[in-house]
Amino acid sequence: MKKIINTPERVVDEMLEGIVRAYPGHLKIAPGTKRTVMLAGAPVKGKVAIITGGGSGHLPLFLGYTGQGLLDGTAVGDVFSSPSSNEIFTLSQAVHAGKGVLYLYGNYGGDILNFDMAAEMAEEEGIETATSIGTDDVASAPANEKEKRRGIAGILYAYKIAGAKAASGASLREVKKWTDRAIENTRTMGVALSSCTIPAAGEPTFSIGDDEMEIGMGIHGEKGVERGKLKSADEIAEIMTTIIIDDLPFKSGDEVSVLVNGLGATAPQELFILFRKVSMILADRKINIYKSFIGEYATSMEMKGASISLFKLDEGLKALLDAPCHSPFLLQQI
Amino acid sequence: MKKIINTPERVVDEMLEGIVRAYPGHLKIAPGTKRTVMLAGAPVKGKVAIITGGGSGHLPLFLGYTGQGLLDGTAVGDVFSSPSSNEIFTLSQAVHAGKGVLYLYGNYGGDILNFDMAAEMAEEEGIETATSIGTDDVASAPANEKEKRRGIAGILYAYKIAGAKAASGASLREVKKWTDRAIENTRTMGVALSSCTIPAAGEPTFSIGDDEMEIGMGIHGEKGVERGKLKSADEIAEIMTTIIIDDLPFKSGDEVSVLVNGLGATAPQELFILFRKVSMILADRKINIYKSFIGEYATSMEMKGASISLFKLDEGLKALLDAPCHSPFLLQQI
Repeated sequence: MKKIINTPERVVDEMLEGIVRAYPGHLKIAPGTKRTVMLAGAPVKGKVAIITGGGSGHLPLFLGYTGQGLLDGTAVGDVFSSPSSNEIFTLSQAVHAGKGVLYLYGNYGGDILNFDMAAEMAEEEGIETATSIGTDDVASAPANEKEKRRGIAGILYAYKIAGAKAASGASLREVKKWTDRAIENTRTMGVALSSCTIPAAGEPTFSIGDDEMEIGMGIHGEKGVERGKLKSADEIAEIMTTIIIDDLPFKSGDEVSVLVNGLGATAPQELFILFRKVSMILADRKINIYKSFIGEYATSMEMKGASISLFKLDEGLKALLDAPCHSPFLLQQI
Repeated sequence: MKKIINTPERVVDEMLEGIVRAYPGHLKIAPGTKRTVMLAGAPVKGKVAIITGGGSGHLPLFLGYTGQGLLDGTAVGDVFSSPSSNEIFTLSQAVHAGKGVLYLYGNYGGDILNFDMAAEMAEEEGIETATSIGTDDVASAPANEKEKRRGIAGILYAYKIAGAKAASGASLREVKKWTDRAIENTRTMGVALSSCTIPAAGEPTFSIGDDEMEIGMGIHGEKGVERGKLKSADEIAEIMTTIIIDDLPFKSGDEVSVLVNGLGATAPQELFILFRKVSMILADRKINIYKSFIGEYATSMEMKGASISLFKLDEGLKALLDAPCHSPFLLQQI
């Protein structure tokens, strides 16, 4: 797959440079780091700081969620590689406002290792820390091993809830409690139609037939639950939405937010065709949609495919979902 | 190219259904039409109504720019085909608030024909109309035949300025004047690395080698100015930005907004790598960036490629660019 880059080795650094050049009043590289961004106005007095991070190649994940009413800082690694623990620690010092730091990221081994090391360093410096881990991908482990599930696009909701709760001045304990509630209430499932190519590898991560799709594939190409002939949009929506609904389970009378996320090369038209069927299935089950997000919220470079997420709401979560937030990466909601 | 659709014939209607299901309080299909959307709150009293339209397959163009402080209604046709004049007329009646209608769309023969017919029907019904046509694509005709140029992603700026001016209560004449000023001040150039596939055709619109790119290609695959080996991001940015700067020309001391637009399958990372170099070139020339937009604003389904636009600002245009607007399709600016 052709890419508009200079050299594979420079992709991450030049992307970061592009981002801070694009939004100079909003984001900056944290002092003493190379691969982090922080809010230009951080530390924000009286507020728990929230940090996320992970491998590059998933924009707007992770950097794009650094924003007012969202996250204070983000650390990234090479494409699909974990951020450095030293950089996470340095970033923690830069954004910490005296009320502690919440680390919020997806459930991947390398990320956990490095965030835990950073947390240890931060605690030694007297910074109180807590950790919440996104585990929304229902395809990656059965319901009775929920803690093994990977985090994918549904982490959007955890970011939004965490950011809004922190902005309200809540304590670290309270912010973590609401963040975990958002994670518990979110379920996602993905489908891939084509592979992405890691710039340094130069070859597609996996091969898939011209007439095939894989349901449940992860955002780095991790094995899914079903490889088969490409089905229609309605059939794909039906399979994925049914698995998601049955997993929580979501029930008649529930109120949900729906996220239909494009993985990179999927035309926006197709996301709305998927959403159409998801909304019909939910209507049939008397599950009410409160608010919908359709677009690219977590990508895998030029992977063709999509994911569907449902987020079960209650009055408290709704208020936090509706709280104002600002990031130049985020789609505006009305 | 695999697509997540049901049948090619249903793509446009199901996409429209998905959109109005996704944003029910915001958008609706105009009564008596099948392929239009209008603001749920239109007609907006005391305001010139603005209508755009064109072929489907370019989301967020055109439907996504229907919003508060943006456009009142949008008519679309089949993929890459013009909207119906009857539907444009019916939409005009639905959104007209007594102050006239501005038709604002890209410079394509079929669109002009159908919008002009609709304008004639509207005038016969006593609706005052005016027309502004986007012509930002510098690759599509030389500077001395500017009126022949196609409209591409830079129409974003015309939409924003027109919408903000109309929202201020200005007359149709005033709204058109400022819209035309935005068009005159905008220049765009695109580059394509791969083709898109029209669903009903089932085959890529054009072929391009695995190591090739085409600079200046249009968003329907119209011939560009240079086909050659894929160059580096910095070289691509240099070629495109230089042509754009020399065309207006943009000069030292000018203040501009930059739009780096993804055509569909381009990873967001790559857009920021392009922007990085564009911003360096502008800094070298002492052209100041006021505000930047980086993301997918006008796509060609799953075409891989990008476009760069510059919009020359003055105090009046800056105030209108900064005026509040709302569409669930638009990237938020800080």
